[in-house]
Amino acid sequence: MSVVVVGSVAYDGVETPHGHVERMLGGACTYIALASSYFAKTRIVAIVGDDFAKEDEAFLASRGINLEGLERVAGKTFFWAGVYSPDMNDRTTLVTDLNVFAGFDPKLPESYRAAPYLILGNIQPALQRSVREQMNGLRLAGGDTMNYWIKDYRDELLATIRQWDFLLINDAEARMLSGEHNLRRAAAKIFEMGPHTLVIKRGEYGAVLFHRDWHFIVPGYLLEEVFDPTGAGDCFAGGFIGYLAEKGFDLKAGHIDAKELSRAVIYGSVMGSFCCEKFGVDRFRTLTRSEIDARFDEFRAFTEF
Amino acid sequence: MSVVVVGSVAYDGVETPHGHVERMLGGACTYIALASSYFAKTRIVAIVGDDFAKEDEAFLASRGINLEGLERVAGKTFFWAGVYSPDMNDRTTLVTDLNVFAGFDPKLPESYRAAPYLILGNIQPALQRSVREQMNGLRLAGGDTMNYWIKDYRDELLATIRQWDFLLINDAEARMLSGEHNLRRAAAKIFEMGPHTLVIKRGEYGAVLFHRDWHFIVPGYLLEEVFDPTGAGDCFAGGFIGYLAEKGFDLKAGHIDAKELSRAVIYGSVMGSFCCEKFGVDRFRTLTRSEIDARFDEFRAFTEF
Repeated sequence: MSVVVVGSVAYDGVETPHGHVERMLGGACTYIALASSYFAKTRIVAIVGDDFAKEDEAFLASRGINLEGLERVAGKTFFWAGVYSPDMNDRTTLVTDLNVFAGFDPKLPESYRAAPYLILGNIQPALQRSVREQMNGLRLAGGDTMNYWIKDYRDELLATIRQWDFLLINDAEARMLSGEHNLRRAAAKIFEMGPHTLVIKRGEYGAVLFHRDWHFIVPGYLLEEVFDPTGAGDCFAGGFIGYLAEKGFDLKAGHIDAKELSRAVIYGSVMGSFCCEKFGVDRFRTLTRSEIDARFDEFRAFTEF
Repeated sequence: MSVVVVGSVAYDGVETPHGHVERMLGGACTYIALASSYFAKTRIVAIVGDDFAKEDEAFLASRGINLEGLERVAGKTFFWAGVYSPDMNDRTTLVTDLNVFAGFDPKLPESYRAAPYLILGNIQPALQRSVREQMNGLRLAGGDTMNYWIKDYRDELLATIRQWDFLLINDAEARMLSGEHNLRRAAAKIFEMGPHTLVIKRGEYGAVLFHRDWHFIVPGYLLEEVFDPTGAGDCFAGGFIGYLAEKGFDLKAGHIDAKELSRAVIYGSVMGSFCCEKFGVDRFRTLTRSEIDARFDEFRAFTEF
């Protein structure tokens, strides 16, 4: 079943201890869609400028991603540049040129509206909300946000996530949104805001999924070498929603299959870990589904007791 | 089968966001032994002053801990005081009065020498080494260390851990000892120093066990409330060695049972999590083995997929 992904398609300049790339394909929507494309039909809604390269479009299409919702306008594509700390746990933004992204007003193609799965990358909450409202027949909807919206657009954000099934954020964002340091209490507060499922990304330490009265925790995959963590959280999101779409996960069935949600967290973790192995989206140029499933099995091997 | 624990028995003054205790029973040996005592016969080697309270001795004895190796001398017992940061991830030492601990020269009672399991709390490496050499018939030996010994007593430390089966340290210590930031590479370097098993404690994020060509990772238990993290790492060590002693884990059998080592990491995590629920050793005044086993099952429930 198909997934609609909304967010930024961008060019990134990235410097890590392993190298420096001036300009490469990036953006939350790109990473989410690439990861999701291994599991389910994936349709994107995004905006790019007339500088958006034919080969980047071809690469997305080669992964079977539906680009009907990729709006092309005059001007430049969103550009972001940043540099990572030596241990890659922190990064400093050097450039944020919104360019055509400043005028992004996502309009869903008619063919997208009945898709059952929706994932909203980190954009202005009002835009996320308008997309959610253009859809009918959703089985599962949710997305990401960030400190900026939590702090300065709190009411707009709360009105937006009230309609979501899941919220997918990092631990600092969960603490900021809930006002609780303790993650169990943070989750309880966030459930009162609407979502019944909270996925907390903890970077190298893995992820926690909270669902009302139970939770699931997975540690991070220990990579031998992290080349570039850019996009890892978005790839997590793509693996998570993609796997649920592949399985036809349905809330309306009246019960939540805890094991399926947990396995979605594992597939999210798998996709995030692959993302770090090369610069930008490069790992997805060669990655195969059998490599993904083999890493899923590795997760089982190093967590089972 | 029995476990010998060597390290500090102390009084601690602790301040956390949840309260302040001026003076309470503490010390690495105390915490390790208390945790181990739920699994195996536990014998301690430590030194205290003439101020060591009868009720503290009675408490240790009530847990079945053998105190034959607890040396009592004139003077004051080791005293440490510290204050935790609001999120309890950092602590500042306010007082370290070694007192009688400065003259600690561990001598094993004859009845301890044939014990099959030895765990060395964080003390000067030369003392750890001398204890190791007083034992015969060991099945498994290892212990803890800290940044101070890694930095300023490196040669002495290397000569000591060369004889150990396992080293149990935190991630910062593993990085410092190995000179490698990446934990997989840090483990590979540490294996060259002697131990075949490396357990890395990651605080709230859990623990990783590396053994030559495989590893096991467990996330941390999500407590609703952390009252006092003092001793949690030592309780982890006590649960780890205690469980292996209970099972009669034997390297000499020619193969390593990976699942038993992994379960030892879980029992370590269980004991560390209980430790945080009350100030100092207080949780161990009421904790039962059935509570421990129930939490072990909880670990399975929140990590299985």
